[in-house]
Amino acid sequence: MKIKTLKQADNNFYQSLQNALSFDEEDNSQIQQTVKDIVQIVKVNGDQSLLEFTKKFDKVDLTDPSDLELPSSILKEAYDSLDTTTQNALNESAQRIKNYHEKQVQDSWSYKEEDGTVLGQKITALDSVGLYVPGGKASYPSSVLMNAIPAKVAGVKNLVMVVPTPNGERNALVLAAAYVANVDRVFTIGGAQAVAALAYGTNTIPQVDKIVGPGNAYVAEAKRVVFGTVGIDMIAGPSEILVITDGKTDPDWLAMDLFSQAEHDELAQAILISSDPSVFEKVILSINKLIDTMPRKEIISTSLQNRGLFIQVDNLHEAAEVSNYISPEHLELSVQDPESLLRNINHAGAIFMGINTCESVGDYCAGPNHVLPTSRTARFSSPLGVYDFQKRSSIINLSARGATRLGKIASVMAEGEGLFAHARSADYRVKADE
Amino acid sequence: MKIKTLKQADNNFYQSLQNALSFDEEDNSQIQQTVKDIVQIVKVNGDQSLLEFTKKFDKVDLTDPSDLELPSSILKEAYDSLDTTTQNALNESAQRIKNYHEKQVQDSWSYKEEDGTVLGQKITALDSVGLYVPGGKASYPSSVLMNAIPAKVAGVKNLVMVVPTPNGERNALVLAAAYVANVDRVFTIGGAQAVAALAYGTNTIPQVDKIVGPGNAYVAEAKRVVFGTVGIDMIAGPSEILVITDGKTDPDWLAMDLFSQAEHDELAQAILISSDPSVFEKVILSINKLIDTMPRKEIISTSLQNRGLFIQVDNLHEAAEVSNYISPEHLELSVQDPESLLRNINHAGAIFMGINTCESVGDYCAGPNHVLPTSRTARFSSPLGVYDFQKRSSIINLSARGATRLGKIASVMAEGEGLFAHARSADYRVKADE
Repeated sequence: MKIKTLKQADNNFYQSLQNALSFDEEDNSQIQQTVKDIVQIVKVNGDQSLLEFTKKFDKVDLTDPSDLELPSSILKEAYDSLDTTTQNALNESAQRIKNYHEKQVQDSWSYKEEDGTVLGQKITALDSVGLYVPGGKASYPSSVLMNAIPAKVAGVKNLVMVVPTPNGERNALVLAAAYVANVDRVFTIGGAQAVAALAYGTNTIPQVDKIVGPGNAYVAEAKRVVFGTVGIDMIAGPSEILVITDGKTDPDWLAMDLFSQAEHDELAQAILISSDPSVFEKVILSINKLIDTMPRKEIISTSLQNRGLFIQVDNLHEAAEVSNYISPEHLELSVQDPESLLRNINHAGAIFMGINTCESVGDYCAGPNHVLPTSRTARFSSPLGVYDFQKRSSIINLSARGATRLGKIASVMAEGEGLFAHARSADYRVKADE
Repeated sequence: MKIKTLKQADNNFYQSLQNALSFDEEDNSQIQQTVKDIVQIVKVNGDQSLLEFTKKFDKVDLTDPSDLELPSSILKEAYDSLDTTTQNALNESAQRIKNYHEKQVQDSWSYKEEDGTVLGQKITALDSVGLYVPGGKASYPSSVLMNAIPAKVAGVKNLVMVVPTPNGERNALVLAAAYVANVDRVFTIGGAQAVAALAYGTNTIPQVDKIVGPGNAYVAEAKRVVFGTVGIDMIAGPSEILVITDGKTDPDWLAMDLFSQAEHDELAQAILISSDPSVFEKVILSINKLIDTMPRKEIISTSLQNRGLFIQVDNLHEAAEVSNYISPEHLELSVQDPESLLRNINHAGAIFMGINTCESVGDYCAGPNHVLPTSRTARFSSPLGVYDFQKRSSIINLSARGATRLGKIASVMAEGEGLFAHARSADYRVKADE
C-alpha cells in the first residue's frame, strides 16, 4: 500500500494540502431536476404520490396510506427480537447519549435593569421534527440514537421518523433503536418523497418544523429544496479522521483507527500527522499486515490509496497548526500529553484525547454526538446537539421610564436612517415627565 | 384605506391565513446565472476582478487593490463628523447591545465520570467573520451594530466589513457605526463579488469563516452559492410585525406601529389581531389621519393595502394560537397583561411586552438583536446572537477503565452495523483485567 505523504516544511505545503483535501463533487443537475419534480408532485398530490413513489422506488405496493405507518408494537417487537447483549448495548449507548446531551439544555433567561426594564430570551423546543433514516446497507441504528435523543432531550413532542423498506425489508436494529429512543411515529417512506412529505405534510404524514438525519444525494438535494419552509441540519460531506501521533502509539492501533474511517466509503479520508517520520513506515507495515483481515478491504484500500494522507511535521505545535487548517471532523490526539496539545486546537468536530480514546467509541456510546461538521466546516459549525432542537425568542419589556429614555435614542437613530414611522412610534412612548 | 380582514371563527381560516401570508418569490434564474459567473471570476481572478466589478457596478475606478481598503482613520473621521446627539445615540445603543449579548456567551464545559472518563465541549469563537453592509439607501448603521457587536462579544478576532460606495459616496453613519463597533477592517466592495472575495479570499481581501449581514437579491444568492465553503447567517424574507391588542391601546399607537413595519418596503407585512372588532375601525381612522404625515406614505400604503391584515379572534387565547401559526418575526403584545399572554406564545423572533414596548426601540437600542427569523422560520430558528459566532468541539477522554467498558459496547454496535474496523479499533482498547 502506498499513501501520499506531505511535509509541512516543503514549499507550497498548504496549496498541496488544499489539493489533497478537495474532492470532485459529482455533477448533480440530473438529481436536482428529479428531486424538484418529486417534491412538487408530493406537495400537490400528497398521500397518493407517496404510495406511487414507494411502489416505484421501494417495490412496496400498498393501497391505503395508513399502511405507511409502522405501529409502535412493531418497534417493540423488533427490540424484543434482539439478543440481550445487543439490547444492553443499545440501552447503555442511549443512556450515555442522553446523559451527555442533558448538559446542553439551555434555559430561558432574563434580567431587570435599574428602571424596571426587563430583557431576556425565552428558549423553547421545536414542536415537531422529522428524522430521516436511510434504508438498506447504510442504515445505522446508532444514527437513530444520535439524532433522536437530542431532539427528545430538548423537549420535541412530535418526533417523526421516516425509513424506507426496499422490497419490504425492515432493519430490526433500526426499529429497535427507534423504540429505545422514544421516536413518536415511524413511516416506511424514503427518498426525496419522504423529505417533501415531512416538509409540506400530507393527510397521513404530519408536517414538521425541521428535518434531520443522513441520506443519499437525492435526500440531501431534497433537504436543500425544502430548506426555508423547514429547518434542516447540515448536509454532510465524506467523513474524515485526522490522527496526530507523537510516535508512541502502537502502529497497529493507528492503522486500525485509519481503517475505521476508510471503511465508511471510498471518499472517506484518513490522515495521519507525525513528527517522527519512522511512524509512517511502521504504520504502512501494520496496514499491509491487517488489511487482509478486513471484510471491507476493498473500500478501505481504495479510500487510503486515493484519499489517505501522511503529513510529516517538525513538532506537535506544527501538528496543531496543520490540524487547525484542516479543521477535521474527527481528531484523535494519540499522544502522551493530549491536554497540552488540546490548548492549541481551535477547530474540530470531536476531539479524542489520548491513545485509549478511539473514534469508534465516540461513534456509538461515549455520549457526545457522532453527527459532526465535515469538509473544514468545523471552522464555523458544531456537532449536532440539543441546541439544534431549541430556538429562542427575544423578550423586551420596557418600563415607562425605560420607554422614555430608549425612545429618545431610537428616535435619533431612526431619523438618521430616514425611517420616520419608526421614530414616531418610539416618540409616542416618550413621557415628558420622565 | 382598506385592509383585508379575516375572522378566526370562519371556515377555512387557516387556509385563508396561509394564502395571506404567502408572497410571490421572484423568478431569479437570471440572478442565479449572473451570480454564479461573478463568483467564479472572483475565485479565479481575485483582486483584478474586484477592481473591474467595482468600476462596472459602483462607478468607482481604482487602480491599486489596496485602495479598496478604508484606513481606520477614515472611520474615526466619520464618527467625529457626527453631532453629539447622534454620537451618544450610537454609543448608548452599542453599549446596550453589548450588555445584552454578553449574557449569551457560552463557556466550555466538561464533567468527569466515576471511572475517570472526561466528556465535554470546548467552545471557541470563529477566527474571522465577514460583515456585508449594503450601500445606498438601504444602508443602516443599526445593522452594523447588530451584526458586528455579537461577533466581537463572541471573541472574533478578524471582523471584516464590506460596503459598496456607489459613485464614491460613503455613508458617514455606517462608517461611524463600524468605528463604534470595533470592526477590524473595511473594504469598499459590494454585490456578489464582495461575498465571493470574503469566501475565497484574494491577495487583498482576507478569507473569512462566516459571512453575515443583509443584502439585495444578488448578495443573498451569492451567500447561497458560497455556503458550505463558509458559514452564512439566515437569508431573510420580507419583514413582518404582528400586533395583538386587547383593545385598550391608543389606536394612533397601533397605527404607527403597523406603519413602522410597512415603511420598510412594499412586501413588508403588518398584521393586527384583536378580540374587539371595533378596534379595526378605530385603527383605520387613525391610519387615514396619520398616513399623510409620513414621508414614506407611498410605500406604507402599498404595503398595508396589499399585505396588511386584520384578524378578529374571540379571545386572547385564540390570538396566541393564531400568532403561533404565524410565528412572526416581531410580535407586540399590546395588552394590559402581557405576562399572562406570553405563556401561550411558542414561536416568535422578538416579543415586545406591553403598550410601552414598541418594535422600533428593539430595532435600535433596547439591546436584543434586530436580525430575526422571518416568514414563519421562528418555528425553528432564533435571533442572531453570540452563539452564531461560537462553535463547539466535543471532548472525549476515556480512562483505561472507561475504554474497556465502552469499547465492549462499541464493538457490539459496530458489528451490528457491519463495520469491523470500528469494532477492532475499540477492541484494541479493551483490557482483560479491567
